[in-house]
Amino acid sequence: MELSGHSLIAGTRANGAGTAFRAVNPATGQTIEPDFFPATAKDVDAAAEAAQAALATYGRLSGGERAKFLRTIADGLDAASAELVARAQLETALPQPRLQGEVARTSNQLRLFAGLIEEGSWVNARIDTALPERKPLPRPDLRSMLRPLGPVAVFGASNFPLAFSVAGGDTASALAGGNPVIVKAHPAHPGTSELAAQVIAEAARACGLPGGVFSLLLDAGIEVGKALVQHPEVKAAGFTGSHTAGRALMDLAAQRHEPIPCFTEMSSTNPVFILPGALRERGAQIATGLHGSFTLGAGQFCTKPGMVFLPKQEGQDAFLAELRKLTAGSQAFTLLTPGIAASYRRALEKRLADARLQTSTGTEAANSCQATAALLETEIDTFLADPSLSDEIFGPDTLIVHYGEREAMLRAAAQLQGHLTATLLGTPEDLAAYQDLIAILERKVGRILFNGFPTGVEVSHAMVHGGPYPATSDSRFTSVGSQAILRFARPVCWQGFPQASLPAELQNENPLGILRMIDGDLTRSAVAVPVAG
Amino acid sequence: MELSGHSLIAGTRANGAGTAFRAVNPATGQTIEPDFFPATAKDVDAAAEAAQAALATYGRLSGGERAKFLRTIADGLDAASAELVARAQLETALPQPRLQGEVARTSNQLRLFAGLIEEGSWVNARIDTALPERKPLPRPDLRSMLRPLGPVAVFGASNFPLAFSVAGGDTASALAGGNPVIVKAHPAHPGTSELAAQVIAEAARACGLPGGVFSLLLDAGIEVGKALVQHPEVKAAGFTGSHTAGRALMDLAAQRHEPIPCFTEMSSTNPVFILPGALRERGAQIATGLHGSFTLGAGQFCTKPGMVFLPKQEGQDAFLAELRKLTAGSQAFTLLTPGIAASYRRALEKRLADARLQTSTGTEAANSCQATAALLETEIDTFLADPSLSDEIFGPDTLIVHYGEREAMLRAAAQLQGHLTATLLGTPEDLAAYQDLIAILERKVGRILFNGFPTGVEVSHAMVHGGPYPATSDSRFTSVGSQAILRFARPVCWQGFPQASLPAELQNENPLGILRMIDGDLTRSAVAVPVAG
Repeated sequence: MELSGHSLIAGTRANGAGTAFRAVNPATGQTIEPDFFPATAKDVDAAAEAAQAALATYGRLSGGERAKFLRTIADGLDAASAELVARAQLETALPQPRLQGEVARTSNQLRLFAGLIEEGSWVNARIDTALPERKPLPRPDLRSMLRPLGPVAVFGASNFPLAFSVAGGDTASALAGGNPVIVKAHPAHPGTSELAAQVIAEAARACGLPGGVFSLLLDAGIEVGKALVQHPEVKAAGFTGSHTAGRALMDLAAQRHEPIPCFTEMSSTNPVFILPGALRERGAQIATGLHGSFTLGAGQFCTKPGMVFLPKQEGQDAFLAELRKLTAGSQAFTLLTPGIAASYRRALEKRLADARLQTSTGTEAANSCQATAALLETEIDTFLADPSLSDEIFGPDTLIVHYGEREAMLRAAAQLQGHLTATLLGTPEDLAAYQDLIAILERKVGRILFNGFPTGVEVSHAMVHGGPYPATSDSRFTSVGSQAILRFARPVCWQGFPQASLPAELQNENPLGILRMIDGDLTRSAVAVPVAG
Repeated sequence: MELSGHSLIAGTRANGAGTAFRAVNPATGQTIEPDFFPATAKDVDAAAEAAQAALATYGRLSGGERAKFLRTIADGLDAASAELVARAQLETALPQPRLQGEVARTSNQLRLFAGLIEEGSWVNARIDTALPERKPLPRPDLRSMLRPLGPVAVFGASNFPLAFSVAGGDTASALAGGNPVIVKAHPAHPGTSELAAQVIAEAARACGLPGGVFSLLLDAGIEVGKALVQHPEVKAAGFTGSHTAGRALMDLAAQRHEPIPCFTEMSSTNPVFILPGALRERGAQIATGLHGSFTLGAGQFCTKPGMVFLPKQEGQDAFLAELRKLTAGSQAFTLLTPGIAASYRRALEKRLADARLQTSTGTEAANSCQATAALLETEIDTFLADPSLSDEIFGPDTLIVHYGEREAMLRAAAQLQGHLTATLLGTPEDLAAYQDLIAILERKVGRILFNGFPTGVEVSHAMVHGGPYPATSDSRFTSVGSQAILRFARPVCWQGFPQASLPAELQNENPLGILRMIDGDLTRSAVAVPVAG
């Protein structure tokens, strides 16, 4: 595959105009060839119109046909793995094994959705049979199932150049649901983005699909993204990134003449609660796990544990000694972009100068793309008085909050904003003794862990990668796992339709063998009573 | 039951201050005793705080316990039916049989949700079992299910003083999902609202629930509603009413520091397409059905068929002659409020003065609360050139759009905004010949009917009372039927939790016998492989 440096509109190379930009190798600070050209307003229009036109075909394909498309993309990614990894390594400085793993995660994610739509029960088919004799009024025959929303705008994330970028979770779930996708590439990895886009476009060709089912738009700034989320033909958006950008997109989506669903996964500090029994039993071991988790991927995960509530009691000294030692021994980490590194440096300098915090740091950053690992510590009264201490810092740091009184810790938990995760480290006895804490945390996060660390997000059916604002824009959805498809689907009901004019999912015989709700009962059986028409 | 004229905060009568207001009998134009007093800012706070406090208890009850509460409310409404109907009749001038039916619809709606949560599978329980041996990394045990969002603000609708008001669909679905509810009563039926609120508060007492599970706030204006949807403890809102009010609430909800889901069901003109075969076979019969539907409830239904696409061909004369005759013979209808009647009059006068429209009208309105039925007709070119002709008019009128070319009709369909419903009247042959039209309509509405009329919304499992904006704020949800509960629920995932600390829905043995997804398979079986912990 060759890089053209241009957007890809419905399978065709655009002729981008305007100021060219390049990716930067964060390991060296050098720019990388080739030049990339921002999409124009016309390109945005063309991509949106082509997506809208593709919906008529793509949105009405069977689950099996769409699954074939997803599997073709997955196979294409696997086949291009070496090229994708090589380019992504230049653009992100992430280690090769991590990127190889991410290609596999990305293609397996597509296959998870392929399996889901091939099986087909996800459409939530419901049939209420007619009751022509009912008094005072007959009941009509009613049948509903989920259908696509329409063209979806996807914003690639910086920290997962494959799994949450062009062919990542948002794209996979939107395509699985029958929605054409337009990706705004993250400007930090335009080459990786173009390569992945070529794989998707080639898969669309191979499957005989209209080109408009997928487009890629390049831009170094925010204009293309703004135009995209405001375009009348775009019916939903998916985004992973910073709070500032995510909230801006939410606001644009809400202010449209026709507001659209805009799922943004933004910021989360992922509180950890070390409970007394565990601290007593295995403080040093917890310190090792915690250090591994907050420095994993240079701390650039949405689920990085960024604050830790630590009781003042037996075991804390061993825990703290180990954690401080590990932090002091930490290498300097190369971050994804000079911009991320600068933000981290600013935030860290502010914290290091804050008299209310005790700090330990690792090896000092050697250049402008590097980050110094840091352990910050404070007292719970300070934390309670200053909610900004719980704000996300994107990079390899964490904040220990020391508390004496359990009540103060519960107050801090109750005062938390929304987060993606909360973690309890404890014994089974701790768990029983802290039901009040769990009840609070259930209302604050999308995922609660017991004796694990929140980094490492499984792509599966039960995963919830979501949570109350500001973790995401809408806590009713997840952006990871098979339930992510629900963000881009809406129910449609057919009333009184003859069998032949109904989608297969809703026909009496249940030709697809899916699970359906018939008159309130969940079953894979056919409709027992033949319905008029 | 006696009317106090005061808001009801967590089971306790508020002492409203400010300017009293009264309901108006639309049949006589006279005000009705007693005085009602608007809730204060303090009342809004108190209701929200009490709701938030109640969530800790109510949100963690079993489905069976919540079902008991819903059934107690339903029984209470049935027992109070005569009182409710008598007061509602004074406040709305709706006919007694309609209101009696509406009480039954309201209590049955509560029982539908009671059945749903008693059965329990609606929580979408998912279990991914641990794979400790998996390479390169083990998979943790992951279990997710739907949990309540938190306190829900409900705005009563004017046109269903029972079924979409205090104890109506929004309240029933929010309570079913475990969310405390705060209702802002519609000022047109404050007495009916207070009576229904007393029934709910009494049911909460009888079931031993915290009073904060339900509050009723009165107000003649918009201040209380605004404060409610902006209150930090309110986590979602449900509304049925005008476009202006609905959009204002959506905007307030989106502009909060913490934006919240706000489901508004707003405006819909419910296009009807009369297809050639049906027009030929039964034009006059269709006219009778259409007239009955657009004048039902004085045209004050969200699903009133407000525009009808009619081909210029055999059968149109018989259809038009009958429809004009029926319209000319229509009685004058009493509308729900003087305000609704004034809006209708203004809209109708504008249409009657519009040279592009041909009009027929019924018996003239005799007073300021009455409405004259009207049939408006125009050519499709006029309609295509002026999208405002498709705007909803709330009252007994409809607009016939005459077309010659099928292409023009398809263009008009493609240009439609979102609506709740679209209706096709045709033969099976028509249906086969108009697949292109159906494909367009699927993207425009929540419910498509074949050979029925859209008024009459069944409260059942397959019903979708939703649709793209401006029909509703979010086409992914419905406000009628059992799926309405999904507006007020969000998934939470437990990772690595011991059995004893999991909700019953997620325990290995499946003690509730619900349908769950285990490792991707939908089953009522227990988890086969015991999980560590």
